[in-house]
Amino acid sequence: MQLYFSPLACSLATRIALYEAGADAAFHRVDLKAHPKRVADGTDFLGLNPKGQVPVLRLDDGELLTENPVILQYVADRFPEAGLAPAEAPERRRLQSWLSFIGSELHVGAFTTLLSKASPEAAKAFALATAAERLAYLDAHLKDREFLQDRFSVADAYLVAVLNWTRAIRLDLSAWPAVAAYHARLLQRPSVARAVGEEFALYSAAA
Amino acid sequence: MQLYFSPLACSLATRIALYEAGADAAFHRVDLKAHPKRVADGTDFLGLNPKGQVPVLRLDDGELLTENPVILQYVADRFPEAGLAPAEAPERRRLQSWLSFIGSELHVGAFTTLLSKASPEAAKAFALATAAERLAYLDAHLKDREFLQDRFSVADAYLVAVLNWTRAIRLDLSAWPAVAAYHARLLQRPSVARAVGEEFALYSAAA
Repeated sequence: MQLYFSPLACSLATRIALYEAGADAAFHRVDLKAHPKRVADGTDFLGLNPKGQVPVLRLDDGELLTENPVILQYVADRFPEAGLAPAEAPERRRLQSWLSFIGSELHVGAFTTLLSKASPEAAKAFALATAAERLAYLDAHLKDREFLQDRFSVADAYLVAVLNWTRAIRLDLSAWPAVAAYHARLLQRPSVARAVGEEFALYSAAA
Repeated sequence: MQLYFSPLACSLATRIALYEAGADAAFHRVDLKAHPKRVADGTDFLGLNPKGQVPVLRLDDGELLTENPVILQYVADRFPEAGLAPAEAPERRRLQSWLSFIGSELHVGAFTTLLSKASPEAAKAFALATAAERLAYLDAHLKDREFLQDRFSVADAYLVAVLNWTRAIRLDLSAWPAVAAYHARLLQRPSVARAVGEEFALYSAAA
């Protein structure tokens, strides 16, 4: 398996999942700011993913996976002993709902605009109001819960990757105390600490 | 099965899938503009889905499903003879990637802001630029293809529901001719024509 990633982008979630699973994988950094976007070895990235987004996971038979919910469930299913996704419905459906919610409502529906250098202030303000609604929903859910579901899953890996962005945009999570505590707790988890530490170093070195 | 829907919202995709499958289902209209949001029979909708969004699919054992990718795959898997989703990987993974792309990048990442009465003009302009990028990607994919994959799937049901919104916001699809032709073609499909016709009548009667 080969993961195409950009430091601290949402591809961080897949790195966390791979570390949780003890998976053997190669990591290829993508320069999303280059024109055209390219992989560190010079490969044209749009040839791998015309959407121009990380993560991309290349399987050993050459299949290219895109979209976080698909890649994260693939990793979970390939390494079932790591317990990164409930095997059976209805719990698997709930995992899929979390992946969809995090991907659509939280990530793309709010943080993509908040993180963008191109988005105007009014768009950021609208996205911030959206983010606040979503974080309130999450806060109610996470009260008295350690993880989104009964145990750590790939949805938690995705959520922590998104919550990390609150630091980049200086969004104080203290208005959502259960989310803030969850985020702090998850950052202590060895797979998360390692993945965040490594990608933060890569990100800082490039800045 | 009971589908909680709002006329011409993304829940239209599930109605199309249910019609394709010839499924026996009850439909409950949700008033998303009421405070608090409520079902036509007066039930508090936030009690069913704290996210306040349609679709919600209530299964016969009481399980409540949320999020389009989850609900649409559930319907496809419950009625396999309708052929609404590829059964096996890698085609099933590709379906999931389409559902994720439509849900995150196109629906929530662009159209939610474009359709919102609350979003400022600058936010709409930014969302329109995002929509244009996504539609260009779709246009390249749909050239010489009848559907997103080899045959009609729940991803097409979702996509046609989203493309319908271009009429509400008067976004001319002719800049993306393959998307425009796909949209026009899908609207002729009996399940789509019936679902759109019925929901348009409901929507118009309420306006």
